[in-house]
Amino acid sequence: MQTYRAPLEDFRFVLEVLGYDAIHALPGYEDYDLETVLSLLSQADTFCREVALPLNRVGDKKGVTYDPATCTVTSPPGFRELFRKYVDAGLLSLGHPTEFGGGGAPHAVALFINEMVTATNKSFSMCPGLTQGLIEAITHHGTDDQRSRYLPKLIGGEWTGTMCLTEPQCGTDLGLLTTKAVPDGDRYRLTGTKIWITFGDHDYCDNIVHLVLARLPDAPAGIKGISVFIVPKLLEDGTRNGITCTGLEHKMGIHASPTCVMSLEGAVGELVGEPHRGMKAMFTMMNVARLNVGLEGVALGEIAYQTAVAFAKDRRQGRAMDPEKRERGAAADNILVHPDVRRMLLEVRSTNEAMRSLAVFTAIEIDRAAKHTDPAQRERGEDLAALLTPVVKSFCTERGFLNTSECMQVLGGSGFTADWSIEQYLRDLRIAMIYEGTNHIQALDLVGRKLPADNGRSYKTFAALVRAAIDRNADNTAIADIVTALRDSLATLDQLTQWLGSREVDGEVVGAVSSAYLNVFALTALCHQWVLQTEIASKREGRFYEGKLKSARYFVHHVLPRIESLAKVVRAGKRHIMAMSADEF
Amino acid sequence: MQTYRAPLEDFRFVLEVLGYDAIHALPGYEDYDLETVLSLLSQADTFCREVALPLNRVGDKKGVTYDPATCTVTSPPGFRELFRKYVDAGLLSLGHPTEFGGGGAPHAVALFINEMVTATNKSFSMCPGLTQGLIEAITHHGTDDQRSRYLPKLIGGEWTGTMCLTEPQCGTDLGLLTTKAVPDGDRYRLTGTKIWITFGDHDYCDNIVHLVLARLPDAPAGIKGISVFIVPKLLEDGTRNGITCTGLEHKMGIHASPTCVMSLEGAVGELVGEPHRGMKAMFTMMNVARLNVGLEGVALGEIAYQTAVAFAKDRRQGRAMDPEKRERGAAADNILVHPDVRRMLLEVRSTNEAMRSLAVFTAIEIDRAAKHTDPAQRERGEDLAALLTPVVKSFCTERGFLNTSECMQVLGGSGFTADWSIEQYLRDLRIAMIYEGTNHIQALDLVGRKLPADNGRSYKTFAALVRAAIDRNADNTAIADIVTALRDSLATLDQLTQWLGSREVDGEVVGAVSSAYLNVFALTALCHQWVLQTEIASKREGRFYEGKLKSARYFVHHVLPRIESLAKVVRAGKRHIMAMSADEF
Repeated sequence: MQTYRAPLEDFRFVLEVLGYDAIHALPGYEDYDLETVLSLLSQADTFCREVALPLNRVGDKKGVTYDPATCTVTSPPGFRELFRKYVDAGLLSLGHPTEFGGGGAPHAVALFINEMVTATNKSFSMCPGLTQGLIEAITHHGTDDQRSRYLPKLIGGEWTGTMCLTEPQCGTDLGLLTTKAVPDGDRYRLTGTKIWITFGDHDYCDNIVHLVLARLPDAPAGIKGISVFIVPKLLEDGTRNGITCTGLEHKMGIHASPTCVMSLEGAVGELVGEPHRGMKAMFTMMNVARLNVGLEGVALGEIAYQTAVAFAKDRRQGRAMDPEKRERGAAADNILVHPDVRRMLLEVRSTNEAMRSLAVFTAIEIDRAAKHTDPAQRERGEDLAALLTPVVKSFCTERGFLNTSECMQVLGGSGFTADWSIEQYLRDLRIAMIYEGTNHIQALDLVGRKLPADNGRSYKTFAALVRAAIDRNADNTAIADIVTALRDSLATLDQLTQWLGSREVDGEVVGAVSSAYLNVFALTALCHQWVLQTEIASKREGRFYEGKLKSARYFVHHVLPRIESLAKVVRAGKRHIMAMSADEF
Repeated sequence: MQTYRAPLEDFRFVLEVLGYDAIHALPGYEDYDLETVLSLLSQADTFCREVALPLNRVGDKKGVTYDPATCTVTSPPGFRELFRKYVDAGLLSLGHPTEFGGGGAPHAVALFINEMVTATNKSFSMCPGLTQGLIEAITHHGTDDQRSRYLPKLIGGEWTGTMCLTEPQCGTDLGLLTTKAVPDGDRYRLTGTKIWITFGDHDYCDNIVHLVLARLPDAPAGIKGISVFIVPKLLEDGTRNGITCTGLEHKMGIHASPTCVMSLEGAVGELVGEPHRGMKAMFTMMNVARLNVGLEGVALGEIAYQTAVAFAKDRRQGRAMDPEKRERGAAADNILVHPDVRRMLLEVRSTNEAMRSLAVFTAIEIDRAAKHTDPAQRERGEDLAALLTPVVKSFCTERGFLNTSECMQVLGGSGFTADWSIEQYLRDLRIAMIYEGTNHIQALDLVGRKLPADNGRSYKTFAALVRAAIDRNADNTAIADIVTALRDSLATLDQLTQWLGSREVDGEVVGAVSSAYLNVFALTALCHQWVLQTEIASKREGRFYEGKLKSARYFVHHVLPRIESLAKVVRAGKRHIMAMSADEF
């Protein structure tokens, strides 16, 4: 049984709490007032439930297939049509520039669309996801000519995009990359092997545009000698370019998403941006992708939660411990009477709602950075988006994985069977902790790059916002416990952040403690979101707002205490991690 | 790539640390001195690596198949032969009574065999696992006649066994069971539907002996009206009995282990034990099974760890942060130089070695209870085994699942592909958190049943042992930090245990906090095992013993701090868990 209904009431509330009005007021976003956005999201919800979701299990069971004779990939039944319908519904183009046929919607709006599509068909969602990333890269780093040749086709869904980074010997360490690009007239010829190329080949449309990292003949060694190229599957005259899918990976999940080995044999490519400066374009693409990957944890956690609640409301097993809560005449009560079933559901809900809020908060900062007329506001937006993106990517994917597993546990044995699909969600989600930079790479990005940048400016901006929320609610007795918890968490985070900037912290210490530190940061950031939400919810009446207060309190008293243990682990430093010699493992 | 080598050196050390000599001295175990045991384990290791492991991936890919025309299950290629070889190697009979053809080995020894078989082929291991449980049940609750008719065939591997508890409407709450047993001469006729019956049908051998829970016509309602019956697939005259497999579940993992729907239509059965007292026999079977299920987390965590280490030693990516650790002339260092790779491996190793130790500790107490001549020692054994079994089952399966996921993370993208099999280990292991009583049921068993029994006698026995280890090492400066950590943990556990027995703790509070409490208990128990191991390791020299000290220190400073957060969550009680009304979820 697969069940999903987008949490539209939560979407509305999050936009309201995070001050979406200010984003709508920015030049370029005037068309997207809150009611228009909610109407769009409601339509997208219907599309996802009625069109994308019914194909999700088919995709998992049938998977993609590869024909070695033709070197082509075939989608599971219905997926080609799904892509067409998705494009026709305007969901691909929504967040892209209007001058190339896009809808021009804010990132914060596109994010909700991504959540819904991912929740209902994660394998499928990866194709438009990568295409979106490619569009961002060409928009920011391409020439006018490249923009005009590629963007309308990509935004219009006539072509799709990929990101070709990884090679057999190089994943996290892109400096080891060996694919070569040799000048040939005004173009280049690329040769090499790329692996783990998502939607490297498929049958959704005829042409695929690959963004390929490679080295020019005069390139410096390492990461500073990487250039980026556009390599289309079909050349302008319609003939096949020398880039071919030579095989598929067999994976734990996302079976309907082809993970391709791509062979380049003198493939024609054109340079994007400056020679040897490819990593810059790649990071543009990856930062947007990383926020969306973080959201995958929210999306699959949400559909798993809804499935677990539906099961729990139907399943009767055992009696309530409190005799007054027992249903008269029934042989057993609904399992929602059992404290541990509630505990599991609240673990998921109290984290997932705050994670969604944090992801939207980050997207709003991206919108602020993109459109605000005040340079100080743009700087704030850039700082916060840069700081929070690795936090969202890492924390939300790991917690989402645990949340989906917790939802499986609510179903007992049924959760392990294919009947309820949670086992598919769990398998599909696991990769999110790995791709787009493993979660530890996110932690290194946070501690090694984002914290020290500009003398710690972005952290100061974040901490000031948190402190403002605390101060604003200093006398708000309705949420005193939540505010106090945030104050304590921020004190811990401040102290650890300061320590990380101290002399005793060398590179190995950063490597040793950054994953735990990221979790302290994330828990504090989620608590901040809960203060923002309950600041408003506490002033309103109705079940939705009461639910917010209850979720927030569960978070504060049952999830947040983890910070203390994590802080202790951060303070333990590297000593016991580096003590073992390599051959002792 | 699948790689496994049983950690025989650790097996030896654990037996030595836990005083196996005293078990070997018990009447009946004289043949199993330490060297004999280690020789047996070494042979079993070879068998598991060379015979069981090569079939593991085949089993996952091909799975079991069901033919609706004949209502029979067919195993993946090679599994039938594997079972025969397993029986011929003496691995099935090893731990069973010699009077019925068994090897008479201590439980502690059989446990290691189970770890190795599970690590190398979990799907397969479930068939002998259930057969072992059935043997225990008939040994303890059958008549002499039943023992002589069934035990030699089961111990000899001519027949196998199942446990038929679950029905569509009843899983955790067995009181809802409706399968009927009607007297028919000196036998009974059983009618009903059972689900999730592991190895309910297969082709390893001709006959299958089902242990079936059912109600007699005069049975009281609920859990006190359940009787247990032996229902063989083939009757004594060789004809088919009325118990049939009518379908298989499609599951996330353990694809080579058939999970059957069994239909009983007037099937002939014989009563085991007294009418309406079936739960007692069932618990005998389940307690042994629960310890072995806990061990599944250790087994798959171990093979995943070995796989991750093999990958990490081969993979080069990035440079060591400390320039002195960089390999000269190489473009990249082995990933073991990276602190976070070490952190992940140490998370797994420092918990898994202690979990194995705790499981063996429990098995040794079972042996003490079974064979000791001193009633006080038998009581101690019974108390500790009863107390620790739910801790091992719950903690080791959950932590094993997380550990296997952590090992996948070490491999990055490769871990998500089928190439390295960790994704299979993760899928195969997830069910262990659910079956044989979900992990929360274990927590309720611990807090609601085991702690209060006999005025808290078993907890007092456990705490006294822990305190003795602390006192014995009060002046042992070599492990002062480990001993201090155990003292602090025990103080927390003592305090929470006392609170659980207080008046303010009602049934709902128990339900709300018992899962977190179990984790506090488990972490303390693991720390106790580390003190026992390092008490000896600190007095010896050599890499193995140094590794023990380093693992223990990682555990104490990086894993154990979790206790503080968990204690805070326990103290938060039920308030925020019970606050939400059912329709607010």
